[in-house]
Formats: sequence, structure tokens, C-alpha cells
Amino acid sequence: MGRRIYALKKYSTLIIANLAGAIMPTYTAPIRDMEFVLNDVLNVQSASVQGYDELEPDFLSAILTEAGKITSDVLAPLNSVGDKEGCVFENGVVRTPTGFKAAFDQVREGGWTGIDCDPEYGGQGMPYIVGTAVGEMFASANMAFGMYQGLTHGAYSAIHVHGSDEQKQKYLPNMVSCHWTGTMNLTEPHCGTDLGLMRTKAEPQPDGTYKITGQKIFISAGDHDLSENIIHLVLAKIPGGPEGVKGISLFIVPKFMVNDDGSLGARNSLSVGKIEEKMGIHGNATCVMNYDGATGFLLGEAHKGMRAMFTMMNEARLGVGLQGLAQAEVAYQNALAYAKDRLQGRDVTGVKNPDGPADPLIVHPDIRRNLMDQKSFIEGARALVFWAAEMIDRTHREGDKDADGLVSLLIPVIKGVLTDKGFECAVQAQQVYGGHGYIEEWGMSQFARDARIAMIYEGANGVQALDLVGRKLAQDGGKHVLAFFNEVKTFIAEHKGKDDAFDTDILEPLKAASKDLQSASMYFMQAGMKNPNDALAGSYDFMHLFGHTALGLMWARMAVAAQNALTLGASDAAFYETKLKTARYYMARQIPATALHLARIQSGSSTVMGLHADAF
Amino acid sequence: MGRRIYALKKYSTLIIANLAGAIMPTYTAPIRDMEFVLNDVLNVQSASVQGYDELEPDFLSAILTEAGKITSDVLAPLNSVGDKEGCVFENGVVRTPTGFKAAFDQVREGGWTGIDCDPEYGGQGMPYIVGTAVGEMFASANMAFGMYQGLTHGAYSAIHVHGSDEQKQKYLPNMVSCHWTGTMNLTEPHCGTDLGLMRTKAEPQPDGTYKITGQKIFISAGDHDLSENIIHLVLAKIPGGPEGVKGISLFIVPKFMVNDDGSLGARNSLSVGKIEEKMGIHGNATCVMNYDGATGFLLGEAHKGMRAMFTMMNEARLGVGLQGLAQAEVAYQNALAYAKDRLQGRDVTGVKNPDGPADPLIVHPDIRRNLMDQKSFIEGARALVFWAAEMIDRTHREGDKDADGLVSLLIPVIKGVLTDKGFECAVQAQQVYGGHGYIEEWGMSQFARDARIAMIYEGANGVQALDLVGRKLAQDGGKHVLAFFNEVKTFIAEHKGKDDAFDTDILEPLKAASKDLQSASMYFMQAGMKNPNDALAGSYDFMHLFGHTALGLMWARMAVAAQNALTLGASDAAFYETKLKTARYYMARQIPATALHLARIQSGSSTVMGLHADAF
Repeated sequence: MGRRIYALKKYSTLIIANLAGAIMPTYTAPIRDMEFVLNDVLNVQSASVQGYDELEPDFLSAILTEAGKITSDVLAPLNSVGDKEGCVFENGVVRTPTGFKAAFDQVREGGWTGIDCDPEYGGQGMPYIVGTAVGEMFASANMAFGMYQGLTHGAYSAIHVHGSDEQKQKYLPNMVSCHWTGTMNLTEPHCGTDLGLMRTKAEPQPDGTYKITGQKIFISAGDHDLSENIIHLVLAKIPGGPEGVKGISLFIVPKFMVNDDGSLGARNSLSVGKIEEKMGIHGNATCVMNYDGATGFLLGEAHKGMRAMFTMMNEARLGVGLQGLAQAEVAYQNALAYAKDRLQGRDVTGVKNPDGPADPLIVHPDIRRNLMDQKSFIEGARALVFWAAEMIDRTHREGDKDADGLVSLLIPVIKGVLTDKGFECAVQAQQVYGGHGYIEEWGMSQFARDARIAMIYEGANGVQALDLVGRKLAQDGGKHVLAFFNEVKTFIAEHKGKDDAFDTDILEPLKAASKDLQSASMYFMQAGMKNPNDALAGSYDFMHLFGHTALGLMWARMAVAAQNALTLGASDAAFYETKLKTARYYMARQIPATALHLARIQSGSSTVMGLHADAF
Repeated sequence: MGRRIYALKKYSTLIIANLAGAIMPTYTAPIRDMEFVLNDVLNVQSASVQGYDELEPDFLSAILTEAGKITSDVLAPLNSVGDKEGCVFENGVVRTPTGFKAAFDQVREGGWTGIDCDPEYGGQGMPYIVGTAVGEMFASANMAFGMYQGLTHGAYSAIHVHGSDEQKQKYLPNMVSCHWTGTMNLTEPHCGTDLGLMRTKAEPQPDGTYKITGQKIFISAGDHDLSENIIHLVLAKIPGGPEGVKGISLFIVPKFMVNDDGSLGARNSLSVGKIEEKMGIHGNATCVMNYDGATGFLLGEAHKGMRAMFTMMNEARLGVGLQGLAQAEVAYQNALAYAKDRLQGRDVTGVKNPDGPADPLIVHPDIRRNLMDQKSFIEGARALVFWAAEMIDRTHREGDKDADGLVSLLIPVIKGVLTDKGFECAVQAQQVYGGHGYIEEWGMSQFARDARIAMIYEGANGVQALDLVGRKLAQDGGKHVLAFFNEVKTFIAEHKGKDDAFDTDILEPLKAASKDLQSASMYFMQAGMKNPNDALAGSYDFMHLFGHTALGLMWARMAVAAQNALTLGASDAAFYETKLKTARYYMARQIPATALHLARIQSGSSTVMGLHADAF
């Protein structure tokens, strides 16, 4: 490939020019924006949540800066290595890509694995919201790598909540430090969403253990060379138990048995059948796991396995939504840098780079539209996820049932919308590169391919929409959706009438969106009573309608925070002015989509279900 | 992987169960639907276009059936082979995947390469619309493979229109038969869209030839082992010519020189620098081409190379739009088969498969929504492309300037919208498979990865939007967009008032969409005059607004055709009833998007262009 010249120094920020060919993507942690959400919008230090008083701006800044360093310097450079090499399964052993082991050791030594874990087991006991901010960085820099740790965290949580004291003492310290990693085993070849069809069985043994037999598929981080032991959590049926999902129990099934003194014992009877060739996240080993009478230990109560899984589901799904946002962030950063550097065409309103052969892409309105779509989604989504993380902290640290109810309602929205939009942004970012976006060497394809999985796993997005409309919406008598509407209403009432332009540009579009969401909810209650298909046919649109309204609320809050900062004479006025302009973009260009979603919802199910299955 | 059981015989159609693992995708040519468009909607045999009188239903059926066989039986099975093996560049030679050469020979022997080419050079002289129908099948069955032939056809057209008699005699017969293939060389490392920056130079020689020197990138089918010779068409600048795009000329640069007796002579001074690793279309070699004083022959006039390229652009862009539609079609077929076979969950309105452990996916409303989105796009898009092909025939065979103007207006819409939506459908189809959609073995990922390129090449979709709004809309005083509005108006006037439900469900939504399109056009004329950015910031939304209206017009036409057939007592009433129901779906669920696009357009450019480039 020919030499590329980067003439416009003033536009050049992130790109490291490689005169011989492609420019590899980089990642810079969006620390300033995270600080804005934590300090200016959520005002965490003053929020009355146990432990939040310690979250002083300097303390947060120090953590985010350190997390930014390890993710940018250590994990991001391994992202394309992981994609190109993938994991290798040879002689029954899974090898991770070059550099993953050393990086994992470094992450472990930095104490990043237990940041929000219980200090009793070696964790740092920080709020979940801090873990979420750091988690975004890990998921941006190297999503496949971050999953080894993320899944361990999920397994840690399950044992922490449902395990006996003995189980906790035995497994948690090594899981907090990631000397042992964890997995979740749900799916089988014939059942994914419909776990009632599960066949893996757990036969009780005289010593109180169980023999686990069956095949599980799509097991992320199912085997690898990063840790000394792997603690598999496996859903299985105890023979003679209730039919369907009510007969499912959860088991701890270690790769190596753990002796009473904590040392590792014999290899358990489980093995990797194969690892899958996937569209993306090549750096994470997705395994077919075969359990051949493996020794398992019941976690929690028998036949209550699904309930145990559900208690972790909010965090797991929030984590996947975060991946959607995180991949959009890193893809956007690189598309932006490319748009500032690549010279192509001229600004129709007047040449911007007279000394160069052409103007940078960013002068073109359609490139702007593309970038602003991404920017306005990403920043709104970050605020939404952090707010949800605060509610999760409020639930766990304050026992706040209202926060728990509202966040449970928002979780399917966050998972479904942030992964759909995250993928869409990654595809848009790839588009900015033109032909180079399609060439693997430039790295933009990987972001799209990696982001794609987040729409599927941890409950495909159609299942999120079903959870939202079929379960969450009416939960506790519809109390939580009313709380959301109230949140919007109170906010608007508090801030309107101070500034006409603000009312028109920010508050009115939010109000219109909220009204569309209320109309849709009302439609579901009325029509859905008569024919459940009328509600279900609109579930996906409802999820996105809700997403737009929730993101709109976050943008309105951010706009108020930015305006307050400007009024107080903040030193970095440019940052806050940009925030206000981006809020206006979201309100002008994105939130009007609620009317379309409402129109689709109100068209009911007659056209959706009109054809007999044979007529397709 | 475990065994899969396909209990529901009545739902099983396309899938060939493979008890050991994944089920590979298949392709069945949508012959019935193509016949409906050609015979019932466009009524081609009666259209007054030279050569169309021969297009009797039986004749069309025979051609489509034969094309269906070779694409389903020969090309489709090689699709995943091409993806997995890719092309290999070793010792300066490019090797295509296993089986490609034999299949290419078979396609050539079947006469498929010259179906709509000039009989004077060995073509079959059929209308372009027939080539388009066959082309859709090739692009569905194996997009990467189809490109070798597709690019040859483009080069053939350029030489056919702009070549001297001698050039035509020398090159065309072997290109029609694909014994020689062709390429297009436009892009250079530093210039894609902005060809004015081109550096490749063409130095005149005393013998009337030119020495071509420079590097071209992203050259599809740039080198391979399928043909004896490759005829490269290369854009280059003759030193001393005008600046920018006005100084670009087009050259014929053969891989092997052609002697006067038609035999092959010396190797020309050109070589492959490397082949690119891409996100998809792995079976097609995307080459970096180095021209080192290669001998080139001027094609057409000096400095008029861009104009020569433009004359082929309608067909080339229509062909890419067709790829979007074609990938959606094949992905949809497989998603539909999976939705009928995969048992998961129960119909909330009542069990549909009481003898099985669960109901098939297709009972679930959100799966229906997903499938109907695809189906309603695909069938509408097919009708639109075929209509455009008819207008291209009308242009070439009847010299119809109005048809030429209208199709030129529609081309950026077809290219941009059909490739955006085609990719979206491939992603939706992949989603139906849940986790299996992400595993390469199941083949759904390839459809999404392959479809992605169509949004980028032959003018990235943002450039299509710019072409539409900045050039085509106002062309000939806005005559062609008025012709389009008139087409809609006349159609509605002709068919309204006969059936209330038809008016409400079909004609009114079309009328509303057309009104939105008119309002947007009006906005561009008024606001765009004052500030061109106001038009350009809405260009992408305008392209999609236009697309919805055009697809809506096609659905209204198809609905009328279906109703006519039912009135006349057609034997396959079920087909026509399904068509009417799908039309209603499009009108209820898809076309309302025009209001959102209009709202975005009318918000102007202030929020889009609000940030200074440094503020991002």
C-alpha cells in the first residue's frame, strides 16, 4: 500500500501513522466523560449510598486513570492479536492467544479482578458503580479478554449469594484474585432460551455430592491456560424432580477437585469437546463441554437453580449492555480520528484546508451525522448504565426495593438497546473508513464482529423484549414503570420555564417521548388483555421506545448538569458546551424515533401474525 | 454437538438435518416470486420494449429454472468453501478456492456469462431485465464467485460503449464468454471517493499506446486462476492534462498482451502487490495492483475517463443493490427454515405442537416480526430492481430519455437502501439462529459479513445520498422527481375508491409517504438554497425516505396485481393472498418510517454541524 500523508497537524490526535500500510486502532479511556457522569450528573459522593462518601473526585480520578493505563497500554494492543490468532484446542488443552497470559497476570497483580468484591474474600469492596466504569474500559480495550474475568465475576456472585460458608471459603478467595476463573453452563444443543428442555442430569451420591452428566454448548472461557483451576457453574436436573424449569438445580463443578487444605486434587470428569469458530471474540474460547459423571456440589437449594441464576441476571445483563456501549466507544474513537485525518473532497460551504489537497472527512455533513449518531448514543448510554449501577448499589447496600424494581425494569432495555445500538455504531464507525473499514488489517471489522455477539448471548434481544413486556412491565402492579414516568415528570417540572430554548430543544422532546411510552404501555394493557400477541408483536419496538426515552432522560439530566457547570463558571467551558450541543442533537435527530415505534406497536398483531406458517 | 431432532415434518422444508453438528445453509431460487414480478406486475411481454415480446411466461420460466439449478446445485455449495479457504497469493499467483475453477467453466459452458450481451460478440442478446433476474440468483448463491463474472460484464459494457471497432473485436468475444475476465481500477491508497487526487499516470508513447504507472487498491477479481487473460480497465492521468477529475482518462491494460491474431502475447508490466484479508467475500481476490510502465490503450477520449465510467454507473450500482437484496434473500430462506424447525418455548395463545417438547420458533410474535421485516423488504426490493432494469432496457432499446432520467434518480436509492437493508436483514436472519447464528459452521455469519461490503463499494452509501440530493434531485430542473411523484399520484388515482380496506391499508400509507417525500424535497429546495449543509445533513435520511416510498409504490402495485389475479380466479390463490398480507405488513410496519426521516431532515444542519471539529 502506498504512503499516507497526514498533513493536518491540528486535526491529528489519536492516529499513529504507519507509512507502510494500515493504521491499527487504539483506545483511550474516556475518563473526562466518566467523571462528568459520576461527579456532575449522578453526584455520587453526595448520594446516600453506603460507601459512596469515599468516592471523592480525586479518588475516582486516580482509579480511572490507572484503569485507563492498563487497558490502553496492555489490553488494547492485544485485541487484534486475539482476533487473528484465536484460541487453539490441541491434545485436549485450550491455548489463549500470545500475550493473554502475561496480561492476565498483570491485571491480577494490579488488583483489578476484585475491585468490587467482598473484602472478606480478598476483594477491595468498592461500589459496583466503580467496577462498572472500569468494566467499560476493559470491554472497550479487549472484549474477548475481559470476558475471562467477567465470567469469573458472575460465578463469584452466584457463590457469594447462594453458597454455604464452606463453599465461599473454599472457592471465593481464589476467584476474587482470578487464580481460579469461573464459567456459566446453561445452553445445550437443543435448548437455549427454553431451558425447561434441559437434559443434563445430576445424580445424587451417598456422600452428598452429585454426578453430572450431559453436554453444554457455547461455554465462554470454558477452558484456557490463564488460571490454575476453573470453577464451572452448571445447571442440571436431579432425576425425579419437577418437570421443566422448576426441576433445574445449580452445581459447582470444578475442573480440578479442591482439597480441604485448598490445594488442587484430581482432575474432574469433564472435558472440552471442541471450541467453536465464531464471527468474533476469537480471543475467548467458546467451548462444547462434556460432563461425564463429573463430581458436582449443589449450590443453593435443589430445584431452585433458575431462581439462583436470576439473582445474578441483572448484573450479567448490565455487563453485556456495557459491552455494546464499550465496543461503540472504541469504534467511534477510531472513526473520529480517521475522519479528522483522511483528506477527501471539499467542504461545500468553503475550503477548510487550503494548503492540503482536500479537506478532512469531518467537514462533510453526512460524516458528521454518522459521528454525532455515535457520540450521542455512547454518552447517553454511559450515563444510563452508570445510573443503573448506582441503583444496583442502592439495592445491595441500602436494601432499597424501589431501586431494585426500577433497575430490574431497565435491565432488559439496557441489554437489548445498548447492544443493538452498540453494534449499529460499530458498523457506522466502520463505514467512515470506506473500503479500509472492510479490510481486517485496519481493525474496524473486528469491532463490528465482536459487538455482534452481545445482541445474542445472555438472552437474545428478542427475549429481552419479551422479558420487558411480558414480565417486568406489569411487575408489582406496574409500580416500576410508573416510577419511571414519575421520574421524567418530576424532572421536567423541576427544570421547565427557566429558559425557552432549553424547554423547546430539550424538555419538550423528552416529554413527547415519555408520552409515546405511556401510550404504548396503555395499549399493551388494553389490547394485550384481549390478545397477548398484540403486546408481544410490539415488544421489540417497545424496548427501543423505552430505550430512547431513557436515553432522552439521561441527556436532559446531562444538559442540566452542563448548564449548571457553565453557570458556575467551570474552567473547561468547551466540554460543557459540547455536551449541551450533543444533547440537542439527540433530541432533534434520535428521540423522534419514539413516534415510529408507537405507530408500529399500535398497529397490533394482525399484520405480524397474518400468515399461516406454511404460507411463508 | 448433540443430536438434533426435527419432529415437525409439516414444518420441515429446506433443512437437511446433519445429526453430527451444524446444518449448512442452502439456496432455492425464488422463481415463483420472480415470475410474479415479471408477468403479473411488470407484465413484461406486453411492455413496448424491443425484445420484450419474446419474454413469454414459458420462456422466462425455462431460463429461471435452469439458472435456479446451477445456482442452487453448483454455486451455493461452494459459498462456504470460498469463505473458509479464501484466495491464496503465492509466488505472484492468485489461487481461487477449491471448486471455483470447475464451477466457472460450467457457468461459461452454460452460456450464462453473455446472457444480455451483444450477439455480435457472442452474447445471447436478451434484455437486461433477464440478466438481472439471473444475476440475483448468482449473487444469492455465491456473491464472491458471482463478482468474477459481474466485473467482467462491467468492463465489457465500458468497451462496448466507448471502444473502437478494433478494440471491440479484439476484446469483447472472449469477455462475453468469460475466457477473459475484466476489472475496474479506480481507488488508490490516498483516494477513494475523491478521484481528483489520483496519481496514477499514463505517459503517451510514440506508437499511440500509453505507459501506465501507479498503484491501485481494492481491485476485486484483480488476479485469479479462472481465466486465461484479465482485461484491466484503469483510470489514470495523462501528464499535462487538466487538474482534478477533468484530467482523468480510461485505459485498457491487459494482463497478457493480445496479438493481432487474437493469441496471447507477452506478460504486461503489472503485478499483484498483495491480496487483502477482508471481513467477507473471501472467495473473491481483492488485490493491490502495481502498474510499472504497463502498456495501456486509451478507451474513449482522453480526459473523458470519468464520463466513460459514469455511463456504466447505473448498471454497476444497480448490480450492487441487487447484491444487498440477494444476500437478504438467501439469509431469510435459511432463517425461515430454522424458525420452522427449531423447537423452543410455547405459543402463548395455545400450544401448536402438542406432540413435541416445544413449539417451533415461528409461533412467537417477535420471530414473526423479524421474518416479516425481511420478507416485506426482499419482495418489495425485487420488484423495485426489476422495474429499474425495465427502465434501463427502455433507455437502451427505445432511447427513452424519461426512463433514463427516472432510473438515474432511483439508482442511488436502490444502491444505498437495498444494501443497508440487505445487511440489516442478513443480521436479523442471523439473530433468528440465536447462538448458532454466531458460529461460522452454521453459515449465517457469512451472509452478514459478505453483505457488509455492498454498503461500501461502488460508492459508499453516504456518497449515494450525496449523489441523490446534490445531483440527481435537481437534474433537468427536477423533472425526474416530479415524474416519480406523478407515478405515485396517478397510481393512487387509478385505484382508489374501489375497496375501503384497500384504500385505508394500502393507498393511504403510500400517499402519506409520498407527501413526506415531497415535503422533504421542498425543504431541500428552500433551505438548501440558503445553506447547502441543510440539505446535505438530511441526505442520508432522504435516501431512506425515498427508498420507503419507492418500496411502498412497488408493494401497492403488487397488491393490485395480486388482487387482480384473485379476482380472475387464479389457481394458486394462497400465493396471492400472502402477497396481499405482506403488502399490508409493509404499510403498517415499515412505511411509517418516512415521518421520522422527514422530522430529521427538517431539523436542518444546526445540530449536525454544531460542534467545531476540535470539540469532538
